[in-house]
Amino acid sequence: MVSPAFLVGLVGTGTIQSLSPALHMAEGRAHGLSHVFRPIDIAALGLELDQLPEILDWSERLGYNAMTVTHPCKQQVIDYLDRVDPVAAELGAVNTVVYAPEGRVGYNTDTTGFEHAFRDGMGDATLRRVVQLGAGGAGTAVADALVRLGAEQLTIVDIDEYRSSSLAADLRGRRGANAVSAPHAELTALLAEADGVVHCTPQGMHDHPGAPFDTALLRSDLWVADIVYRPLETELLRAARATGCTTLAGGRMAVYQAVDAFRLITGVEPDAERMMRHFRELAAAEGVA
Amino acid sequence: MVSPAFLVGLVGTGTIQSLSPALHMAEGRAHGLSHVFRPIDIAALGLELDQLPEILDWSERLGYNAMTVTHPCKQQVIDYLDRVDPVAAELGAVNTVVYAPEGRVGYNTDTTGFEHAFRDGMGDATLRRVVQLGAGGAGTAVADALVRLGAEQLTIVDIDEYRSSSLAADLRGRRGANAVSAPHAELTALLAEADGVVHCTPQGMHDHPGAPFDTALLRSDLWVADIVYRPLETELLRAARATGCTTLAGGRMAVYQAVDAFRLITGVEPDAERMMRHFRELAAAEGVA
Repeated sequence: MVSPAFLVGLVGTGTIQSLSPALHMAEGRAHGLSHVFRPIDIAALGLELDQLPEILDWSERLGYNAMTVTHPCKQQVIDYLDRVDPVAAELGAVNTVVYAPEGRVGYNTDTTGFEHAFRDGMGDATLRRVVQLGAGGAGTAVADALVRLGAEQLTIVDIDEYRSSSLAADLRGRRGANAVSAPHAELTALLAEADGVVHCTPQGMHDHPGAPFDTALLRSDLWVADIVYRPLETELLRAARATGCTTLAGGRMAVYQAVDAFRLITGVEPDAERMMRHFRELAAAEGVA
Repeated sequence: MVSPAFLVGLVGTGTIQSLSPALHMAEGRAHGLSHVFRPIDIAALGLELDQLPEILDWSERLGYNAMTVTHPCKQQVIDYLDRVDPVAAELGAVNTVVYAPEGRVGYNTDTTGFEHAFRDGMGDATLRRVVQLGAGGAGTAVADALVRLGAEQLTIVDIDEYRSSSLAADLRGRRGANAVSAPHAELTALLAEADGVVHCTPQGMHDHPGAPFDTALLRSDLWVADIVYRPLETELLRAARATGCTTLAGGRMAVYQAVDAFRLITGVEPDAERMMRHFRELAAAEGVA
């Protein structure tokens, strides 16, 4: 009679555009849960970023079970938690806060989401030499996942060489990873030797059209993972498929991020393939695909 | 794909014990809505009553669609609304605030709930002479409903004669109603002449056991409405049924209050009989019945 009820938010800027609320609620309904997921768009509400602690306090008072967190709050939020899961603490970024009876616990399902998407979609990919393009926030979460997945040598390339060398140094220091950075000019040579490439820049999004590198560099025995999911099929992925590469689309990371968050928040095992279908339908409905 | 989602609160003190959240959410699930209803217990949260405006502001920011309101906030809340429905304004009390695009709109479904429960359950009762016992907050909402239902002469009795005479004067002044007050000592004579009696004191609740007057005064052609619903069957109602009176149980007012609020908040027509069944199940499950 009294079924469990879950109230969840997504705090950050631009969250009104997020597909997460609809994606989580569709899965909640499929499980017969009372489940509401609200975007909390700091800028649109006329709030300031330093009001994040108030947002957390009030959401907890007003019956929220969890708050998912996006740009630009993923680091800042850590200051207001009681405990941080080791994977998220390692990364220094939290995207899911569960209001547990014992306090607020932070997790990072961006990094676990990429890891699970990769295991599911590219389970037997060779990980001897991996090139990662992009060393921003998403790239940092992906790099940690690649290290957990067993990447033997990770080369990080970013237009901003300070960022790529910092991330590589960080991965060596924190994780003991065999990670190096390389200038963008070396990409041709790097790809020629690589088993796979992971793309973590905004290139290929609707407002940044085009491929992030010359797709003539692709070859059929190179696997390609793209984290861009708007559109679902980027120019890079299209070229990679045409070349015969094994590919992993950004939608999978986005969905597995939500799959992991849904499980942490509700304790209910979500159906990842159903969430993937929902995600494609939602993306198609809003013209993202 | 994207189904409507509703987030609703119940603000006041002691709201954690309320059956409303479970009652509303069960009806929401039955309609396939994403729907969460949270108790917001001011005292239990360590908040002060003068923080009501903050509670309203934050609930609106955090994606609430509506806030239902109970003791002791039903009058105070009016100061923070953009518009008050005429029936609620007349009464000076609001128990449902809808956060509409045009602003916050206040309603009172206690009074409409009693009215609807009465129409449904006692549709052809004679309303020439009605005695109402109890002139507190609930009694005030019920008296307005009785006037709308067409009570020709309403006599209000309360142990506190100041309260009963104030309410009667108020009904005469505001509503042009034929309403008078009478001392408790006259109850025997009043009931002898009455078509029906409405009971609006806490007598008969679990912690106030017993009937509110000598049940030997009941007769089969007197209708009896009780607004106490914990327990669902009070000593007064049991005696009235045994006497052959037509009766209206407090659970009906409680449920129709929720029926009217659900409709205002969601725009979806609730199934009143299903909500009545849910209510009985919820009450039985928590030992209220």
